Amino acid sequence: MNDFLELAKRRQTCREFADRPVEHEKLAKCVEAARLAPSGCNAQPWSFVVVESPDMVGKAAECVAMNGMNPYAAQAKAFVVILEEHAKLMPQIACMLDSQYFAKGDLGAAAAYFCLEAESQGLGTCQFGIYDRPKLGQLLGIPEHKQYAALIGIGYPANPEVRIKQRKPLDQLVRSV
Amino acid sequence: MNDFLELAKRRQTCREFADRPVEHEKLAKCVEAARLAPSGCNAQPWSFVVVESPDMVGKAAECVAMNGMNPYAAQAKAFVVILEEHAKLMPQIACMLDSQYFAKGDLGAAAAYFCLEAESQGLGTCQFGIYDRPKLGQLLGIPEHKQYAALIGIGYPANPEVRIKQRKPLDQLVRSV
Repeated sequence: MNDFLELAKRRQTCREFADRPVEHEKLAKCVEAARLAPSGCNAQPWSFVVVESPDMVGKAAECVAMNGMNPYAAQAKAFVVILEEHAKLMPQIACMLDSQYFAKGDLGAAAAYFCLEAESQGLGTCQFGIYDRPKLGQLLGIPEHKQYAALIGIGYPANPEVRIKQRKPLDQLVRSV
Repeated sequence: MNDFLELAKRRQTCREFADRPVEHEKLAKCVEAARLAPSGCNAQPWSFVVVESPDMVGKAAECVAMNGMNPYAAQAKAFVVILEEHAKLMPQIACMLDSQYFAKGDLGAAAAYFCLEAESQGLGTCQFGIYDRPKLGQLLGIPEHKQYAALIGIGYPANPEVRIKQRKPLDQLVRSV
């Protein structure tokens, strides 16, 4: 596998999903990939709620498409919620840093792995930043104190065209010494 | 590119680097991949300091290998520091959330992309969590107020053997509804 950069270029936010169900096996592979992400002290401070039964997917979409935001959530064929869990650090680190010091970054890596594996299998993903969290938590039985790291909608892209990514120019971002 | 899961299995923390220099072009590709990571509102809240001149790499290693920790840092042939930058969110999001609300997760994704592209090119990486940050910041001219998202050591692995990853069992981590 020598073309990760090509995969990175192809992965893009999908805002138009086809009316085609997503196979359970493909979702399981996305979770398997996310589970392999690196984490500080290998603490793996994550858990996953996969929403895939059509009834629950419809109800979850109602928690995401709200106030005119995220209308395409209604087309998603599955969702995954990635939750932050307690990170057990190694004793020599735990005496210096809060248990969750690395967790947010670790969870960002896990979400990225999930979406990259989805793209690798021909699935589109969309991370939602704003949604009705109390309503979604109640629907999915997620304890109120839990931190949500990511909510990702999944489906087959209705439009396979790869868009050119808009990124800041490299010379604004990088310095070599 | 249909085998991301294989790449995810192969990517591992490298704690033994070969005495072989790392090509500038390969480091540039890692940064290019990291730049393509997704971010909330596409805010790209990151910048990169690539340490690759042998003199600076040696001095940076002294900031990382300290008090008996991270002894293998001395073998790294390059480092990259990923810094958190201000995230400019879309107005309709910015009125609800702090500018840096998504940043830590975004930076975790960028660091993951960096390390995956490194693996894809045959390079090994190691993320360091503990190091002498004031000394490193002074060496590299990083302003004191900056948040460090990742410090990654890079080199060719001295031992190409892929270890079995230790991960919590899936049934502890995943729930499907």
